[in-house]
Amino acid sequence: MSWFSKDVKSMDDLFVHTLRDIYYAENQILKALPTMIDKATDPQLKEGFEKHLRETQNQVQRLEEAFRLHGAEIQGVDCPAIDGILKEADETAGEVENPRILDAALIFSAQAVEHYEITRYGSLIAWAKLLGRNDIAELLQQNLEEERAADQALNQLAEGGVNQRAAA
Amino acid sequence: MSWFSKDVKSMDDLFVHTLRDIYYAENQILKALPTMIDKATDPQLKEGFEKHLRETQNQVQRLEEAFRLHGAEIQGVDCPAIDGILKEADETAGEVENPRILDAALIFSAQAVEHYEITRYGSLIAWAKLLGRNDIAELLQQNLEEERAADQALNQLAEGGVNQRAAA
Repeated sequence: MSWFSKDVKSMDDLFVHTLRDIYYAENQILKALPTMIDKATDPQLKEGFEKHLRETQNQVQRLEEAFRLHGAEIQGVDCPAIDGILKEADETAGEVENPRILDAALIFSAQAVEHYEITRYGSLIAWAKLLGRNDIAELLQQNLEEERAADQALNQLAEGGVNQRAAA
Repeated sequence: MSWFSKDVKSMDDLFVHTLRDIYYAENQILKALPTMIDKATDPQLKEGFEKHLRETQNQVQRLEEAFRLHGAEIQGVDCPAIDGILKEADETAGEVENPRILDAALIFSAQAVEHYEITRYGSLIAWAKLLGRNDIAELLQQNLEEERAADQALNQLAEGGVNQRAAA
């Protein structure tokens, strides 16, 4: 989230700014996922990233619906956190030659992305409820549950063979 | 994690690099916490950050012990992810005037830090076990448990009044 002026004067402002932060983040993730799909060699990991790409497209639409429900303009704001997380993911992917180790590294990078989203949606849902917007909270809850499921699926892939093969 | 050359050729390399990544991250967090302590107005939040500063000092020592056990040089590597997360936290703290909203924003920023650490320690512990280093895994597990407890304490503070006061 980047603040261009001291314009956060209420929880509603903080909520809308954070919605814009995660909207930017989801859009950056949409751009990053095709590269991750391309680099993954484990078929289940590749399929998992493809599934998450489709989920992320839906999540962006849910966020746009959240903006509409709240009467706020649909826009992103710079989010140095996701930029940093994706930069690190990209550097990792670019510097590991062995494809089995790369799979383990891709999971590790993707989990950092998921955890960032989990914490942001957690705050947004709490704030939406506080602002009396249970309708928006429910939309965001769907995104949160998909992120949690994606993180668990990555854990299962790592523990189910990817890490073992990387260490072989 | 920044890779200066394609030098990650084994899981052991990936493990050591990631240890250096989180070592850098913990040291950056040590530098950031005094500002967060200073900015927090809720006494319990301030106390929570102070407690976490002491924990982080111990965590750095455990990481140094992990390097020693593994026979790897104690050093950090650039970690764009934590730099981005802390940059965002700093921008947020600098741009919210109302101290009650600032408390809510500080919790939100600190939770992004905790989640980054939780995911990194999760991968490191899995890899340490895979590499047959249960002794190192146990050290890292202590750090992970402290990060999880810190995240839960932040949740309780947010739900226990900070968010409500920010929205009042």
